[in-house]
Amino acid sequence: MHSVQFTAETTPADGLRERDFTVAGVPGVLWSPAGATGREPLVLMGHGGGTHKKWPGMTGRAERLVRAGGFHVAVIDAPGHNGRPLSADDEREVAALQQAMAAGEPVGPIVVRHNARIAERAVPEWRATLDALQQLPEIGPDGPVGYFGLNMGTAIGIPLIAAEPRITAAVLGMFWPDTVAGPAARITVPVQYALQWDDEHIPRAAGLALFDAFGSQEKTLHANAGRHKEVPRFEADSAVAFFTRHLRHPAPVPAS
Amino acid sequence: MHSVQFTAETTPADGLRERDFTVAGVPGVLWSPAGATGREPLVLMGHGGGTHKKWPGMTGRAERLVRAGGFHVAVIDAPGHNGRPLSADDEREVAALQQAMAAGEPVGPIVVRHNARIAERAVPEWRATLDALQQLPEIGPDGPVGYFGLNMGTAIGIPLIAAEPRITAAVLGMFWPDTVAGPAARITVPVQYALQWDDEHIPRAAGLALFDAFGSQEKTLHANAGRHKEVPRFEADSAVAFFTRHLRHPAPVPAS
Repeated sequence: MHSVQFTAETTPADGLRERDFTVAGVPGVLWSPAGATGREPLVLMGHGGGTHKKWPGMTGRAERLVRAGGFHVAVIDAPGHNGRPLSADDEREVAALQQAMAAGEPVGPIVVRHNARIAERAVPEWRATLDALQQLPEIGPDGPVGYFGLNMGTAIGIPLIAAEPRITAAVLGMFWPDTVAGPAARITVPVQYALQWDDEHIPRAAGLALFDAFGSQEKTLHANAGRHKEVPRFEADSAVAFFTRHLRHPAPVPAS
Repeated sequence: MHSVQFTAETTPADGLRERDFTVAGVPGVLWSPAGATGREPLVLMGHGGGTHKKWPGMTGRAERLVRAGGFHVAVIDAPGHNGRPLSADDEREVAALQQAMAAGEPVGPIVVRHNARIAERAVPEWRATLDALQQLPEIGPDGPVGYFGLNMGTAIGIPLIAAEPRITAAVLGMFWPDTVAGPAARITVPVQYALQWDDEHIPRAAGLALFDAFGSQEKTLHANAGRHKEVPRFEADSAVAFFTRHLRHPAPVPAS
């Protein structure tokens, strides 16, 4: 089993500890409450397509999760992102995406098929990263684990959560159902799902269909007025409340 | 202008002050933080059909709003509810509703038309109550005012908010669009709207259509898995967060 190799440590803001790491060569970052002594729950965060582990959306959400929730938060760079090697498939799809955007054509079909192939590579990387993170004494092998990712973070998150029983609560959103409705139906943990009501890329019916597909008994849709990139910041606070509810006060498992 | 006549005062729980009142003969209840000295924002709550101002759903939400938000919370009994006189129309519709339920027929059409007529009577009562409550020194004439009501509380709330510029934020949900989509389109204040994804009374498309109808630039749909009466309790906490955001930190009004 691979272990976490820490490569740098900083204090980007009061109360926040930031450690860069690699697991089997995959670069990641772990944010933690500064000065925490006991074990705290872990939230894995998946970044969106074309961004990276320290994109402002990631650092902003991480800071809220650490400060307001007291969680550890880990992000890894997705395959082909932030200087990680591009496959021939990545190169073709990035070119196709740029062409579609330049021509004003829909990007959905390209994003959907490309993210499905990125997810195939990303899921085993996440599982190895989780194995390694759980060896740290401040996280531990039995602690609660959540997942938070929108856009490509959902394209990777859905097959990851479907495969990974250690993840017991997830905040997802902003994707098409085509390639992920199948694994979404196998997910039974509590899910909070964000979509934008006026999304110019993902048709409203497609977003609602993916929410509908989750097998979870407890699932909540948060649909906000606005376009694709206008997810309101208060959804980050809502995610903190969701993870606090599920990772800090898990409901008792009913006797079967 | 009518004023608030207080008729009883109790302390139902630590930190909570409960005062029964009437305004022009309409009975209400005002919950407040015990020992509060300055002015605090006011949340008006509308109860559901067939219930009353101190129904458990009302007292539970009020307690959270007072304790976690520091708000004043007022509820009045709707016309024809809690011993208030029934009109001939009320009597006919209550009988029609009981018949439909006994026969296993849809109740929606009866609820929709009856609640529209209750709302015609309730809106002026709410406005007179708000006039009177704003004369109290602990609320004041210029303080922020929100509205929170589901089911019949939404059937009354939508025309009330459309008519009432003093209400600047609202949590609504669980109604059909038929009679209220028109006034909903004239509402422009922030709205959080709850619906149940598996509602056995309100078809999913009807619930989504009403959310779509609101004219508000900031609107958020919270759709939860479950049947009509299974709205999760955490939605009450979410309402506290929403009102705290809007009644305690209102966004600056842009220069037009």
